[in-house]
Amino acid sequence: MIEPITSAKNPKVKYATSLRERRERDATGEFLIEGYRELFRACQAHVAIDSLFVCEERFLGANEPALIAAIKKSGTKVYACVPHVFDKLSYRDRPDGLLAIAKQMKTSLHDLSTSLSASSGVPLLIVAEAIEKPGNLGTILRSADAVAADGVIVCDRCTDIYNPNVVRASTGTLFTLPVVEADGESTIGWLKQHRIAIAAATPHAATEFTDVDLTGPVAILIGTEQLGLTPRWLSQAELEMRIPMLGVADSLNVATATSLLLYEALRQRRGVHV
Amino acid sequence: MIEPITSAKNPKVKYATSLRERRERDATGEFLIEGYRELFRACQAHVAIDSLFVCEERFLGANEPALIAAIKKSGTKVYACVPHVFDKLSYRDRPDGLLAIAKQMKTSLHDLSTSLSASSGVPLLIVAEAIEKPGNLGTILRSADAVAADGVIVCDRCTDIYNPNVVRASTGTLFTLPVVEADGESTIGWLKQHRIAIAAATPHAATEFTDVDLTGPVAILIGTEQLGLTPRWLSQAELEMRIPMLGVADSLNVATATSLLLYEALRQRRGVHV
Repeated sequence: MIEPITSAKNPKVKYATSLRERRERDATGEFLIEGYRELFRACQAHVAIDSLFVCEERFLGANEPALIAAIKKSGTKVYACVPHVFDKLSYRDRPDGLLAIAKQMKTSLHDLSTSLSASSGVPLLIVAEAIEKPGNLGTILRSADAVAADGVIVCDRCTDIYNPNVVRASTGTLFTLPVVEADGESTIGWLKQHRIAIAAATPHAATEFTDVDLTGPVAILIGTEQLGLTPRWLSQAELEMRIPMLGVADSLNVATATSLLLYEALRQRRGVHV
Repeated sequence: MIEPITSAKNPKVKYATSLRERRERDATGEFLIEGYRELFRACQAHVAIDSLFVCEERFLGANEPALIAAIKKSGTKVYACVPHVFDKLSYRDRPDGLLAIAKQMKTSLHDLSTSLSASSGVPLLIVAEAIEKPGNLGTILRSADAVAADGVIVCDRCTDIYNPNVVRASTGTLFTLPVVEADGESTIGWLKQHRIAIAAATPHAATEFTDVDLTGPVAILIGTEQLGLTPRWLSQAELEMRIPMLGVADSLNVATATSLLLYEALRQRRGVHV
């Protein structure tokens, strides 16, 4: 049964829009997933989807009914919204008629240990300290997925990983990649326990990133947009590297910098030389 | 003389906020520059600043008076706003008390020829086709500055380079780097005339970007976030390259992809090998 919703005052709609706020997400342990691509990846990754709002008039493709059926099969309640209601729910420029309420995954460092021990490769992780902008964090996840990194640890979070703009900028890789929120202390202990070296990107390093050996088990450490890494984290780094800056600006966008380091690790690991 | 503004209804304030809209920017040939770092770079680059709004209560540093004095010296009218007025003018989360109205630079392909002929290096350019998101375009400019690229050509624009979010994401490198808006036809002709090879990033290329020779005069060609490159542009490319994608997602953020290609060109040109 698909329940129709014709009023934006529907309590379910009000609850969904309240989840745009971190306070509500933290209090309820739920969050929003909007968009076909994002929901497709959430569904593949068996994220628990509580409710799904659909609006046929806003569909952009032909595969929506199949995805809705797949999600419905797992016991999700589906609501059919009239366009003006869906447009209130949506936080996108181009709504595509699909938005869900899901349970937060709450992946832990322990889960990450499990997935590492199931992998045959040399660990490649990202530790992101206090990233502020959800778009940057999502873009970092998208790049981490692209190089098949083993996971991302978000430390002392400024933005929570369930922010709708993280989900969007990650294009759903938030669901397919282990992403852990943890405090700095636990993360440092966990990395030591797994003998994973911390490689810090800092403008003060003597060595450029293309000259640092990233072929061993390594966690690439990146800091906030405004302030970079804190001394506490920098003091833990076994490797330090800088990205050459030849222009007037003194830093790159944090997601750009992270992606450069990830692809450099990939290039080195695959032994690709020009 | 610094003129005080105590009301958000002041016509100068109204005019400034109207420049958030592209229609107004296109009609007037003016745009907004907000923030110390951005204004500092605009001032260095001799961008014509028409009016400057300041709000001492919002200053974050100690160098603002010196910058204001430097800008004032060039004949700019300065307005001192009370905080509630400045907060209306600002489009940032953290206003820092400086916002200006400036004349669009309107750099042309001809200007780019001039700056290329003054440079001793092998040309490295970016051609961006129809980028939609201002944040992406600004981040591309920031990375282009970082590798000391010779310029960025924005073709068949979807977002104009004077969008406030381009200025912000570029951290002011929009002013220090030649950035040209041009149509595709003229750009292709110009590149041929200067014997600059077009290197297209496309997922269908046989060769990875680290295996393509980017040491000659080259323009890195990137397409829209949604659709990639159009056939018209792809058919012009002398070089094609792809970025390895090992995860579930089929593409990177467009600014991330561009930055990877730029830094790969830099790595090859500097002969850096691990």
